[in-house]
Amino acid sequence: MKAVQVVGYHTKLQLTEIPEPEVEGPFDVIVRIGGAGLCRTDIHILEGQWAGKSGVELPYTIGHENAGWVHAIGDAVTNVAVGDKVILHPLITCGQCRACRSGDDVHCENSAFPGIDTNGGYAEFLRTTARSVVRIDDSLEPADVAALADAGLTAYHAVAKAAKVLRPGDTCVMIGAGGLGHIGIQVLKAISAATLVVVDRNPDAVKLAAEIGADHAIVADGTHVQQVLDLTGGNGAEAVVDFVGEGGATEEGVAMLRRAGSYYVVGYGENIDVPTIDIISTEINFIGNLVGSYNDLQDLMVLAAQGKVGLHTTKYPLGDFQRAIDDLDAGRVRGRAILVP
Amino acid sequence: MKAVQVVGYHTKLQLTEIPEPEVEGPFDVIVRIGGAGLCRTDIHILEGQWAGKSGVELPYTIGHENAGWVHAIGDAVTNVAVGDKVILHPLITCGQCRACRSGDDVHCENSAFPGIDTNGGYAEFLRTTARSVVRIDDSLEPADVAALADAGLTAYHAVAKAAKVLRPGDTCVMIGAGGLGHIGIQVLKAISAATLVVVDRNPDAVKLAAEIGADHAIVADGTHVQQVLDLTGGNGAEAVVDFVGEGGATEEGVAMLRRAGSYYVVGYGENIDVPTIDIISTEINFIGNLVGSYNDLQDLMVLAAQGKVGLHTTKYPLGDFQRAIDDLDAGRVRGRAILVP
Amino acid sequence: MKAVQVVGYHTKLQLTEIPEPEVEGPFDVIVRIGGAGLCRTDIHILEGQWAGKSGVELPYTIGHENAGWVHAIGDAVTNVAVGDKVILHPLITCGQCRACRSGDDVHCENSAFPGIDTNGGYAEFLRTTARSVVRIDDSLEPADVAALADAGLTAYHAVAKAAKVLRPGDTCVMIGAGGLGHIGIQVLKAISAATLVVVDRNPDAVKLAAEIGADHAIVADGTHVQQVLDLTGGNGAEAVVDFVGEGGATEEGVAMLRRAGSYYVVGYGENIDVPTIDIISTEINFIGNLVGSYNDLQDLMVLAAQGKVGLHTTKYPLGDFQRAIDDLDAGRVRGRAILVP
Amino acid sequence: MKAVQVVGYHTKLQLTEIPEPEVEGPFDVIVRIGGAGLCRTDIHILEGQWAGKSGVELPYTIGHENAGWVHAIGDAVTNVAVGDKVILHPLITCGQCRACRSGDDVHCENSAFPGIDTNGGYAEFLRTTARSVVRIDDSLEPADVAALADAGLTAYHAVAKAAKVLRPGDTCVMIGAGGLGHIGIQVLKAISAATLVVVDRNPDAVKLAAEIGADHAIVADGTHVQQVLDLTGGNGAEAVVDFVGEGGATEEGVAMLRRAGSYYVVGYGENIDVPTIDIISTEINFIGNLVGSYNDLQDLMVLAAQGKVGLHTTKYPLGDFQRAIDDLDAGRVRGRAILVP
Repeated sequence: MKAVQVVGYHTKLQLTEIPEPEVEGPFDVIVRIGGAGLCRTDIHILEGQWAGKSGVELPYTIGHENAGWVHAIGDAVTNVAVGDKVILHPLITCGQCRACRSGDDVHCENSAFPGIDTNGGYAEFLRTTARSVVRIDDSLEPADVAALADAGLTAYHAVAKAAKVLRPGDTCVMIGAGGLGHIGIQVLKAISAATLVVVDRNPDAVKLAAEIGADHAIVADGTHVQQVLDLTGGNGAEAVVDFVGEGGATEEGVAMLRRAGSYYVVGYGENIDVPTIDIISTEINFIGNLVGSYNDLQDLMVLAAQGKVGLHTTKYPLGDFQRAIDDLDAGRVRGRAILVP
Repeated sequence: MKAVQVVGYHTKLQLTEIPEPEVEGPFDVIVRIGGAGLCRTDIHILEGQWAGKSGVELPYTIGHENAGWVHAIGDAVTNVAVGDKVILHPLITCGQCRACRSGDDVHCENSAFPGIDTNGGYAEFLRTTARSVVRIDDSLEPADVAALADAGLTAYHAVAKAAKVLRPGDTCVMIGAGGLGHIGIQVLKAISAATLVVVDRNPDAVKLAAEIGADHAIVADGTHVQQVLDLTGGNGAEAVVDFVGEGGATEEGVAMLRRAGSYYVVGYGENIDVPTIDIISTEINFIGNLVGSYNDLQDLMVLAAQGKVGLHTTKYPLGDFQRAIDDLDAGRVRGRAILVP
Repeated sequence: MKAVQVVGYHTKLQLTEIPEPEVEGPFDVIVRIGGAGLCRTDIHILEGQWAGKSGVELPYTIGHENAGWVHAIGDAVTNVAVGDKVILHPLITCGQCRACRSGDDVHCENSAFPGIDTNGGYAEFLRTTARSVVRIDDSLEPADVAALADAGLTAYHAVAKAAKVLRPGDTCVMIGAGGLGHIGIQVLKAISAATLVVVDRNPDAVKLAAEIGADHAIVADGTHVQQVLDLTGGNGAEAVVDFVGEGGATEEGVAMLRRAGSYYVVGYGENIDVPTIDIISTEINFIGNLVGSYNDLQDLMVLAAQGKVGLHTTKYPLGDFQRAIDDLDAGRVRGRAILVP
Repeated sequence: MKAVQVVGYHTKLQLTEIPEPEVEGPFDVIVRIGGAGLCRTDIHILEGQWAGKSGVELPYTIGHENAGWVHAIGDAVTNVAVGDKVILHPLITCGQCRACRSGDDVHCENSAFPGIDTNGGYAEFLRTTARSVVRIDDSLEPADVAALADAGLTAYHAVAKAAKVLRPGDTCVMIGAGGLGHIGIQVLKAISAATLVVVDRNPDAVKLAAEIGADHAIVADGTHVQQVLDLTGGNGAEAVVDFVGEGGATEEGVAMLRRAGSYYVVGYGENIDVPTIDIISTEINFIGNLVGSYNDLQDLMVLAAQGKVGLHTTKYPLGDFQRAIDDLDAGRVRGRAILVP
């Protein structure tokens, strides 16, 4: 089959012919790829930034946001059947450790990460296991939802955590209305009646935020902290979900937070650097957020099937992978770029 | 001032002139009534059904679903000011017991219940305390929201409890699309992405349910339990909110419940009568629901201000109280009847 | 190997020679049995009470409370190694369904139940999977803890659920200080500072309850409901854990419950039969409890290793199974009877 | 009556004669002081560190850890009677704001703080309100528990929050076994079966920690982070409760934290300064902790009455206040210094 592989760092990806993966264990699932999301992480991989962490052996197939159709299954697979449309949780997890057994499989003690440390989805087929395939509704197409597998899932996870403690009268601020924020806005409006304030430096992103559900959308122009305080009677917001995490976002974000409020860290780059006296005297919390669990991905796919969460995508044939990467690198992709075999 | 009073049981209410209530303690609040909801409980009071429980001394002013404007306040009142539009929590609570201090003031150990055991709102003014007045948005009118003070608050309380554990892929069944169910439907759609199935014997109520947000609305025609099972892949619903509680509703409702699901008891009349072996082998729960707390009422008023929860009302001048009662008794009221001084 | 098998209903168990189980799948685990608890359910199985439910084909090996040593493992097993001491969760679960992925594997959609619907532990070896084996501390012996695998786990599950909402000043009533209650008492004292009142008809059980931690131990002599009310200032208990569920226990138990309290159903026999008006006016809950999850069993084994939960056992060689059954049937076993191969 | 007052900053406290406080409002409670804890904050007050924040007018009576007997009550007080032994929650709260109604009165929007911004307890009598007095068990003496009113309550609040999510197999690290840590250790052992590791620089404090319940007590000698990792299989602790918050404690504490673990900030001085990439990749949380609520204080008094939480105190007659302060300043007080009128 055709696959796009990393053959070396600081060199281009290469389209090549490799053997189709086959079912080897009773829980294996072979997925025929319908769409694989292109992500900035892919570029970082090529730059060698992940080489040490992942320890992956070259060459290998890249691509970690995958969806498609079940092509073959092992004897013990009960949750999907051949022909089912599926999206893939980014991790392959063991199902034996405490984390896997607690709905917290993201912290699996024995996980693999296709596209990062084992063969991923820029290919015609991919081997994963029963524990990583989520059936999607017949009304959804794999290529349309693939990009929700990682970026979207991270946004869902953080926002669903915040929504659990937000009441109708509360305010939630989201910092950043880009890829993740775009999903986060739609998720919050679907599962909560909290008032949503979105802050971004980009006026176009702010405009889009208002269109897809933000109750207040604010351009980060230096007055934005004060604007949030004004909108909240001077008290600040019960929750701040920070999809940016750099360029001073965290200091501003903390200034928008109400007493006893919670700051959801999603984006990264700079440090959370706050005096302990401020943390205890206002009794605020900082909540870390990694990608969501398999259960989270099921939930997000329900929202997608209900038409409550959508994503703009630009599709490229698998063979045009280089053009897709070049477009991504140059900022020419509207929404998310998807490779379609 | 004018007030409609209970002067005896099994006799008619009487419009009379009594002194205006005045501020006596530092936390007292005098409310000029803008609307007082008429409720079937009022008829039961006249029949003497509450005489023993309430121990109220006759004559007294009836009416327990009240909203209006703050007319006067005691020295220690900080949460409202004269002129504010307010809705009244049905109970006057002490603020000193554990329940009051835990957001669970409905279980206050020293509460009074205006309209039931002390003077209520079928009058021009009513005395309550700072702990019972919830400010409402400028866009809302007291007479339009008064009926949310008790019936609506009960529905909100139960549904918000269910929503806390419902994920997007779950199913919630509501039994009964009458006064409470009508609010319950709107509340669930505002704060949750769970799939909502509404069951009622009345085809008109079923039709309305679908219009205001039910994903599936089913006439209870004998096939409804099976229809719910079919809609849930044979598994049943994660939550059943029962606004009826009589006429066999509970047996049918339990049959619609999924393993590990929860049954929210709101309506009443018959017994919950279930074999313990069934409770433990499927690990289901029965959750009691009384009226909501003051905090719940604040939340509900937010949903009302957002336009997410509304109520059809028919208004009557206070002097026409007898016509209103007659209409209610004869089933001639569309939505809720409201007395307006 | 030697195994004790059901060869027919209404006939005696039979010791026979069958082939040793072998690793067949990558997640299989073969356990050398160190102890298998004898349970009244075993007698019910022989009476044919489970024949219809389980659909098990005869002959098969009985025994559903098992512990021992890991004898062999499949390629994909990572959580135990050969030689490890283990206790077995009563179910073999799929690891793929939503329940398994949520820490709620007891509601697995594809489970098997060794000793009930597939070969159990009255034998030298048993085949299970990685998802069912819990490592136990070196200080514990399999034969000493085997009986915690099912009866003990059920008690732990219910009590841990109650403990999550009990504060130091709350009261928890346990009805029944027999097999499950005995464990329940020790668990509650280990993880909570709530005041514990134990009620039982048997004065010896009441005495034992006091010795192992009950703050108040009461003989159910007709005054016990009033005694509980007296101990709680007339309010009743925040939690009632009912290990009996028959003989009028539930009606008495509900009478001991405080407003907004929760009734944990564990024992079974009679119906929960309560007017809905009582459920809503006091806002009480009924919480079903099945056996605990794998995670619960891990937690219980921690308490056992800490010396906080213990169990008296009487051991019998596997060959003496008939004597053990006769002793159990005649009420001659002190604590739990354990078969040791 | 006699009272010890702040008459100026950078000058000594002064014993003086002032009028006894009297009941002015219906919820007022006059407490005859039985003991008032001396706290390092008192010294900071004299240094003028609080002058700006509190805006208190001089002279005023100092002392914010108070217990005694109810001397007089207003008409509307229902939760205590004259003669009751009580401990005082540090804040006087309004009972009207959302925080007060949610069990979160520490964030009351209209609170007063006796001893800080209004008259405190270094006196014969103190005026507070019904919302601030917690009845204590007959077996307890006001002077013995007074110091639990603030320092102890803070420790209880943080530890109870951690205990809610700790299971028996989890590890909790406490940094600092001084005044707060001493209480924290006893609280955790009373309400949880988690393994407790205590770290302190002072070998005597470490020794005491082991005596009062720590499962492992470690001298912070540079190897302590590694020791915690070793005790937790290299994974780190599910919870770290940091009573120190300065001198590098937070960096070390974060290094002791497990993936998905929570860091409870109690002590203060330095900054929490952690890369967002570390927060999201391990999905850790930082949880702020202020003093506990009224409900928390009730719970802590239950533990005190059960003999599970105790405190060593050194008592001084009110007139010897200067000697008590000098002893505190010189580090000569064993346990907590208490002024007894």
